[in-house]
Amino acid sequence: MAATAALREIRDEAKDRPVFPPPSLTARPIDRAAWIAAFHHVRDETERRAAPLSPEDQQVQSMADASPTKWHRAHTTWFFEQFLLRDHMPGYVLYDERLHYLFNSYYVAAGPRQPRILRGLITRPTTAEVAAYRTHVDRAVGALLAEAATEALATLLPILEIGLYHEQQHQELLVTDILHAFAQNPLGPAYDEAWRFPRPQGTPGSVPLPSGVTQIGHAGEGFSFDNESPRHDALIQGGAIDRSLVTNADWLAFMADGGYARPELWLSDGWLAVQAEGWDAPGYWRHGEDGWASMTLAGIRPIDPSLPVTHVSYYEADAYARWAGRDLPTEFEWEVAARDGHLPDAFGLVWQWTRSAYTAYPGYRPVDGALGEYNGKFMSNQFVLRGSSVATPGGHARTGYRNFFYPHQRWQFTGLRLSDARA
Amino acid sequence: MAATAALREIRDEAKDRPVFPPPSLTARPIDRAAWIAAFHHVRDETERRAAPLSPEDQQVQSMADASPTKWHRAHTTWFFEQFLLRDHMPGYVLYDERLHYLFNSYYVAAGPRQPRILRGLITRPTTAEVAAYRTHVDRAVGALLAEAATEALATLLPILEIGLYHEQQHQELLVTDILHAFAQNPLGPAYDEAWRFPRPQGTPGSVPLPSGVTQIGHAGEGFSFDNESPRHDALIQGGAIDRSLVTNADWLAFMADGGYARPELWLSDGWLAVQAEGWDAPGYWRHGEDGWASMTLAGIRPIDPSLPVTHVSYYEADAYARWAGRDLPTEFEWEVAARDGHLPDAFGLVWQWTRSAYTAYPGYRPVDGALGEYNGKFMSNQFVLRGSSVATPGGHARTGYRNFFYPHQRWQFTGLRLSDARA
Amino acid sequence: MAATAALREIRDEAKDRPVFPPPSLTARPIDRAAWIAAFHHVRDETERRAAPLSPEDQQVQSMADASPTKWHRAHTTWFFEQFLLRDHMPGYVLYDERLHYLFNSYYVAAGPRQPRILRGLITRPTTAEVAAYRTHVDRAVGALLAEAATEALATLLPILEIGLYHEQQHQELLVTDILHAFAQNPLGPAYDEAWRFPRPQGTPGSVPLPSGVTQIGHAGEGFSFDNESPRHDALIQGGAIDRSLVTNADWLAFMADGGYARPELWLSDGWLAVQAEGWDAPGYWRHGEDGWASMTLAGIRPIDPSLPVTHVSYYEADAYARWAGRDLPTEFEWEVAARDGHLPDAFGLVWQWTRSAYTAYPGYRPVDGALGEYNGKFMSNQFVLRGSSVATPGGHARTGYRNFFYPHQRWQFTGLRLSDARA
Amino acid sequence: MAATAALREIRDEAKDRPVFPPPSLTARPIDRAAWIAAFHHVRDETERRAAPLSPEDQQVQSMADASPTKWHRAHTTWFFEQFLLRDHMPGYVLYDERLHYLFNSYYVAAGPRQPRILRGLITRPTTAEVAAYRTHVDRAVGALLAEAATEALATLLPILEIGLYHEQQHQELLVTDILHAFAQNPLGPAYDEAWRFPRPQGTPGSVPLPSGVTQIGHAGEGFSFDNESPRHDALIQGGAIDRSLVTNADWLAFMADGGYARPELWLSDGWLAVQAEGWDAPGYWRHGEDGWASMTLAGIRPIDPSLPVTHVSYYEADAYARWAGRDLPTEFEWEVAARDGHLPDAFGLVWQWTRSAYTAYPGYRPVDGALGEYNGKFMSNQFVLRGSSVATPGGHARTGYRNFFYPHQRWQFTGLRLSDARA
Repeated sequence: MAATAALREIRDEAKDRPVFPPPSLTARPIDRAAWIAAFHHVRDETERRAAPLSPEDQQVQSMADASPTKWHRAHTTWFFEQFLLRDHMPGYVLYDERLHYLFNSYYVAAGPRQPRILRGLITRPTTAEVAAYRTHVDRAVGALLAEAATEALATLLPILEIGLYHEQQHQELLVTDILHAFAQNPLGPAYDEAWRFPRPQGTPGSVPLPSGVTQIGHAGEGFSFDNESPRHDALIQGGAIDRSLVTNADWLAFMADGGYARPELWLSDGWLAVQAEGWDAPGYWRHGEDGWASMTLAGIRPIDPSLPVTHVSYYEADAYARWAGRDLPTEFEWEVAARDGHLPDAFGLVWQWTRSAYTAYPGYRPVDGALGEYNGKFMSNQFVLRGSSVATPGGHARTGYRNFFYPHQRWQFTGLRLSDARA
Repeated sequence: MAATAALREIRDEAKDRPVFPPPSLTARPIDRAAWIAAFHHVRDETERRAAPLSPEDQQVQSMADASPTKWHRAHTTWFFEQFLLRDHMPGYVLYDERLHYLFNSYYVAAGPRQPRILRGLITRPTTAEVAAYRTHVDRAVGALLAEAATEALATLLPILEIGLYHEQQHQELLVTDILHAFAQNPLGPAYDEAWRFPRPQGTPGSVPLPSGVTQIGHAGEGFSFDNESPRHDALIQGGAIDRSLVTNADWLAFMADGGYARPELWLSDGWLAVQAEGWDAPGYWRHGEDGWASMTLAGIRPIDPSLPVTHVSYYEADAYARWAGRDLPTEFEWEVAARDGHLPDAFGLVWQWTRSAYTAYPGYRPVDGALGEYNGKFMSNQFVLRGSSVATPGGHARTGYRNFFYPHQRWQFTGLRLSDARA
Repeated sequence: MAATAALREIRDEAKDRPVFPPPSLTARPIDRAAWIAAFHHVRDETERRAAPLSPEDQQVQSMADASPTKWHRAHTTWFFEQFLLRDHMPGYVLYDERLHYLFNSYYVAAGPRQPRILRGLITRPTTAEVAAYRTHVDRAVGALLAEAATEALATLLPILEIGLYHEQQHQELLVTDILHAFAQNPLGPAYDEAWRFPRPQGTPGSVPLPSGVTQIGHAGEGFSFDNESPRHDALIQGGAIDRSLVTNADWLAFMADGGYARPELWLSDGWLAVQAEGWDAPGYWRHGEDGWASMTLAGIRPIDPSLPVTHVSYYEADAYARWAGRDLPTEFEWEVAARDGHLPDAFGLVWQWTRSAYTAYPGYRPVDGALGEYNGKFMSNQFVLRGSSVATPGGHARTGYRNFFYPHQRWQFTGLRLSDARA
Repeated sequence: MAATAALREIRDEAKDRPVFPPPSLTARPIDRAAWIAAFHHVRDETERRAAPLSPEDQQVQSMADASPTKWHRAHTTWFFEQFLLRDHMPGYVLYDERLHYLFNSYYVAAGPRQPRILRGLITRPTTAEVAAYRTHVDRAVGALLAEAATEALATLLPILEIGLYHEQQHQELLVTDILHAFAQNPLGPAYDEAWRFPRPQGTPGSVPLPSGVTQIGHAGEGFSFDNESPRHDALIQGGAIDRSLVTNADWLAFMADGGYARPELWLSDGWLAVQAEGWDAPGYWRHGEDGWASMTLAGIRPIDPSLPVTHVSYYEADAYARWAGRDLPTEFEWEVAARDGHLPDAFGLVWQWTRSAYTAYPGYRPVDGALGEYNGKFMSNQFVLRGSSVATPGGHARTGYRNFFYPHQRWQFTGLRLSDARA
């Protein structure tokens, strides 16, 4: 009776806590149930995101940068089977060895893999077979977590944890990739008719940036990716950063002022992209009889001037800032302002381009083994984005989170916030 | 009573006749039931061929030359809706006007259309929705044929007839396209585990070709495509043509003699293709621990030396003939020998490359309108193949039939038969 | 005295004969002086064509299909050194072995060679060094011809003869290649300010083509390339062929009628070329303030409506014929009409596209060895042109001569003459 | 007499001063003679570098990144004519207006220009004509400088100064571009048989980097490019930097350890470059019978293990550092160490890759007008190199100089120096 009451109490307490993120790896005693709940929460979210999609939808790869929904579902499953079950569950037999070639992404150390560009050609296993693969691995991971000795959990949980954050990244890609695929269809299908972009809360004006040396990078007990470390000193020059995101109304003014036709506003590589791609508006915008509209997760919708502009590349963000006589913030300026709570709309609307090239923090070394391929090998030719977007799963992002994309890419929910650098 | 007996008699008679080809357009009285039966026969065959394929399989386009199964099913349906129902069924309302953009192939006169290379990106309409489209059009065509005034049939049947032959061509492509798609999958899935290549009947040796002027091209009452006309005089130089097809055993001898490594055996453009594509064997061949195997409709199977070689390009066929000190026949030499009944394995195994470039017969003029785009506009850079293949639907081919492909293409069931030109 | 008088007589007689073509190979006694004269005549003509060009002009390769002037001068020299001096002049030492890699064109059997596309990057040997190479080889060939035993000449002269015709082909390319290079220069330099296109002599109307079997291909004692053999029977269907070439005035009417904007007039591959290349007029035409002008050997000149149209591709010629409701002749129809003397302007203005794909005559076999690579290996994807052009050297062409180019190529002086096929 | 003696005195004094760099812009009184001398010194150096090259050599463009020698000579001349003579010399008439289209490089604001990739196709003006253009402009500039009122010089000299540094940059490119062109020639021609790579002076070991905030960027009176400003605070984290450059011996050890075959050592984009380009050694290295050799300005020479490695891309430099368990320095670390005099071989051997992406200093704004296109528009996707190379003209570089190239480029004299970042 007392035991039951205690258990109920624990559960009641858990109800108030979000299931994700899971507890800190260093928390003791280890809350096994919380980790199992976090695992199923993340796995279920992937399925929830795939649910509106037909087998045909899940098959398609609409460009080299994107992947089929089916592939995302299988690859995230492969990740747990490869790094958790195969290496750490005694007696575990691979569900189907052939899947390891098909669903490895870019982990060279984990063996050969299907060329990225050909992912969309793999019609078998089917969507249903991938669902069965997921179910199998979910059960095995659930059993492993439930039955592992407490000491073993110290080894398992760090792998589990990175697997969960990894799957969340693919959840975001799943949504942005299918939006890209649907945008190729002249019929403009909707992923979710009821979807709406959230309204921003930012107010006009900017907040000053404190000049001086400060600490940047991950600290404390929660999860972070390796590219957020080591924590180190950085110098903030001062200046100020806007409280609000650049809006569609702002962008229409840029367009009206010839923004896409004035080479002096653009980086040299950006101007090449404008000409090669024929850009004259943000991604997915199309001009119709009733003015500008955009392909969205709810299908084709008129542009709402009050919403943040999204699907702009770094080149466009940079040109806009030059046009406005302003700057993009550095990633450190953004981080300092965000951790002080001065950036409304930092999270949940659009990733915000910074003018920081994506490079290693001083003294950074990737972790050993295949998981070391996670972040470090992309540290050239990309720019850092901070915050998170409407497609980012809950609990995934944080102030120190470093997202990165090539400056020409714009199929993510990417926008911008301006700043004024101190001259 | 008498009527019923008469009807039964007709049906009994029909049982002995193949349902396809349908009666001659000039046969009187018009056998309405036979045409309806032919229509359903062809339409059903497409569905029968698609039946083993999952929605994912039907979605994929594995190269620019191929199309998704779903697209073949929809496009052949569009053809009947566009040219028969819309133009000739009073009061007919299009099933869904948007499909006309998606499922027009290359009929420029029939309006704009989805770029060929992007066919694989159209996930909606789904496979199930395409099936519903087929059903709808089938019913409408059935009703039109059943209810049209006899005089109206004279207009309808020529369109129906070309639609049937058109759909049969897509039936062959459906099979060869999915074989290409499956060949990209490292798992090597089977379209039909029980599928086997038919055994050839040809015997050694050759038959002489009669020299002199003869008539070439379509004659008589049956169907033919416009590129088989006008019937005209042609000069046969003499020489001889083989009774059997070139086999895998023959081809292995060519390979063993360095056939793919000796530029002097190849046309200049062919040698470029060898180097660019890395060809060292026929299409779909792969060398494994147990020797050469090939991706087939039944999955990966060992090479059977006694079967005809297939999936060879014109460049390969030409190089083989040069290596053998022999010739490929002209299309006229093939036709003359075939109509005299001297060519075992002419039909039903592999299309046979001829050394005739695909050009117009003297005085050829395409028919007016969109259907005139059928054949004539491809009369450059391609070579004629004669006969038919294992993938060709029953009743489709004939002695005068002219198939054509680019000399580098080899995803069809294409082989060869040698000859000796008279010097 | 008598000897001197006899010699003078011979010389006087020679004055009345053109130096080129040289005597028949079978003529006896062998006229050694005539062959030496023919050799120097051809070699000098190359130099005469290169003379207006600066070292910089001679260095440039403006597209993959073209070659630098310097390369033409060196390659034709290499041909004599490789096939005549090295193989047949006792004790001959190569001028510079390294040149053999640089100046072999496509003779795979003659060893590895500089990739075609990189010919323009070879700045050394310089133009002056190539001139020295020419002088050296000219002297050696002259000595060989002067001193060889009469019996040896029977071996040497066939090689010499093909070398002379080979060099003449490069003389034509030298001119058309430099025209292409100059056309890339916004300044529009002139190769020869005084150059003028010859006026055509053709009269309106057509001549009938005799139907029936006739002999086609090379006959008699003069030179011919291997692709003109074997002589064989061919069937002429009848019809008629125009006495005059299509003119610029005709072409302007085609353009005014939307010729370049109506896909129904074009072969499928041709329409792709129109779109990919942005063709809206013949090659080198440009529209300025004073109407259409064209880049010519004399620089940019206004279009003269009465001159034959030139720099049109096969695709354009074919589209024009379709627009006109006429045909292009077959190569055999052209040959029959030309040898009967019924084709004004057959030679010396523009090569005339025929609707014959370039294939082997029945029983054709290439000659053995490297010289066998001359013609046969190009027998796919090209069309035959007959006649000769303003850039063709005197004495080079003949009624049975078969020129060939890809259907998209138009940097040669290529035009057309219409016909009416018998239906 | 006294005057003459004074003049002699000035000349004697001048003899001890290098002619380049010229005096500071702010020095008063303005030393007109020194500026004229600097102008002629720089102009003569270009001619000196072009002198060993034939007209053919000067014509060629061997890749899109390179330009013909002739173009460098003309473009640097255009720069002075465009920005100095046209805008500031009263009554000056352009030498030839058409050259402005041909020889503008990328100054969008200065008007349309010949597409970069086609520079090698412009055979006219010839090399001799470009020499005449240079002479004309040199005389005009000389006259302008000699005759301008003193007040006018305040406007002229800043333009002259940037023109001189601009021409020096093209002097370096002239040499590296012709090396690339010659490397395409199988004969391996030498630019200068007597050329030798200078011997390095660096000693083993490293020097510590002082941690703390320091000033970075241009200060003082000498010339600098706009990308070196504004001077600003930067934080140095500490660590250490090597006194010597990485040598060919070091690089051979990296190669022997599988450096080019181990993807885990490479950035993801770098590994793609290795595979796409087939890199297995630094640029211009080739393996022959006697081991590794390299194409150099003196032709093909054996690799000298004691010399600094050169012609390595950023990707290679980064992989090498990872292999060595070391780092590349940041550009600020390099600058701090260099200005303290701790970096032997900082200048005159190889540019040294840093791990700093090329971005703007805080508060950077490009200058107005066409000259503002000089540096800022390249601030994406490139990395900073510091120091200077064997091809850099004397007096050009300085401690704060920021060179930049794309991470895949390696036709410059680019090498590296390692460091240890403080973790």
